[in-house]
Amino acid sequence: MRKIKLRIMYDGTRYVGWQEQPNGVSVQATIRDALKRMVGEEVALVGASRTDAGVHAVAQVAHFETESRVPAGGFVAGVNSILPDDIAVTDAEEVPEGFHARRSSKGKRYVYRILVSRSRNPFLEGRAWTLRNALNIDSMRAASACLLGEHDFSSFRASGCGSRDSVRTITRIEVSSRPLPHEMLSGEGEIVELLFEGNGFLRHMIRNIVGTLVDAGHGRLSSDDIQRILLAKKRIEAGRCAPASGLFLADVFY
Amino acid sequence: MRKIKLRIMYDGTRYVGWQEQPNGVSVQATIRDALKRMVGEEVALVGASRTDAGVHAVAQVAHFETESRVPAGGFVAGVNSILPDDIAVTDAEEVPEGFHARRSSKGKRYVYRILVSRSRNPFLEGRAWTLRNALNIDSMRAASACLLGEHDFSSFRASGCGSRDSVRTITRIEVSSRPLPHEMLSGEGEIVELLFEGNGFLRHMIRNIVGTLVDAGHGRLSSDDIQRILLAKKRIEAGRCAPASGLFLADVFY
Repeated sequence: MRKIKLRIMYDGTRYVGWQEQPNGVSVQATIRDALKRMVGEEVALVGASRTDAGVHAVAQVAHFETESRVPAGGFVAGVNSILPDDIAVTDAEEVPEGFHARRSSKGKRYVYRILVSRSRNPFLEGRAWTLRNALNIDSMRAASACLLGEHDFSSFRASGCGSRDSVRTITRIEVSSRPLPHEMLSGEGEIVELLFEGNGFLRHMIRNIVGTLVDAGHGRLSSDDIQRILLAKKRIEAGRCAPASGLFLADVFY
Repeated sequence: MRKIKLRIMYDGTRYVGWQEQPNGVSVQATIRDALKRMVGEEVALVGASRTDAGVHAVAQVAHFETESRVPAGGFVAGVNSILPDDIAVTDAEEVPEGFHARRSSKGKRYVYRILVSRSRNPFLEGRAWTLRNALNIDSMRAASACLLGEHDFSSFRASGCGSRDSVRTITRIEVSSRPLPHEMLSGEGEIVELLFEGNGFLRHMIRNIVGTLVDAGHGRLSSDDIQRILLAKKRIEAGRCAPASGLFLADVFY
């Protein structure tokens, strides 16, 4: 059996998430069915991250095993010709037998995108969290500092999170902002992006952190409050859960 | 009667274009029905540009007359609360009786967006023309030069174009390119954008010019060829019509 590693980009708006669910179409099943049609055999597709409903990916990674002799690169054009427009395989390569998309992963990068604008933007609909009030970027940066490193992130995990261990390490948080218009296609507003890198993330952890950092950016919480919330280890202490639409799985590290 | 001027942003993917058509939903009718519901009276909505099916707008301009006493600014939030997510009113102001969105217009800006990439990008699907082969930007700039100024653009008009006069003036053409990835959300590829400003454009004129300039960017046509095509004044001489998905109405000048 050969093992193939795929890099996958998708707009998650239409999907119930990466993982199969009884209530709708998953990204995983959509790609698995396209692979099955291409190679003519059953395929088990394992993804690095179980992105939630409405969450996007610039670079999800997944693997599958196959008897097919199709050269690895041939899976890019082959599967894309079957997949719907909102999913694209961007790279495919043959990997050693021991590779596992989830278990071999050393870390992940997520980006959360916020549009600060007086009116909504049809081109970012479903792909950003739109907020009307300006965010203080310096306050958000200051508030994020205490989250760096190894901590028990119980205050930022979803109530239904199945992980036994709630200790995770965040190695990088960056908050940036830039005006929405570029030189040609103007539109009113500002894009605020939050980048997170770490060895793993609990269910809804990034969205709960983003909701809490937005409270800091709006002056409702101080850096001391964030520290207190983290140490409380209770979900009820933190801010709201930011919507799925703004979250992008940006990279998986091996 | 008061006259209100609206600035409107829309993703044209789902629509038959700005103007009403028997075969589907138009942007104009969608906004008109929202206004009607808000003010409780029939409304006639006149747009500056009749964008085609699948063409987008960052800043379409339209006007309507109303007996309503709603303050002009109130139309932004009011109409947006009724409109679907892919259309947004971004500004509203009261204008003098003599203002006419189309007739008062002194010029327009359009931007055409091309993605040069080995694989398609789900986030630009329907919002760019995806090409696999690299474009020579210098060749496209050189080829565009002879189109500047006042010319008979018969070679670049659609066969069904209803304008009596095919003479138009293009005051500005700019071709730019930038890598697709920004610092956080990476993706493979290059964005090439073509900006056009002029006093008016014939039906499909920009898309036919873009198709022809892409032939220049791929080395299939020289600057001399473009000059020859322009002077021939026959549609059959020019390159293919670029798809609607890449075209954005970017501004209307008064």
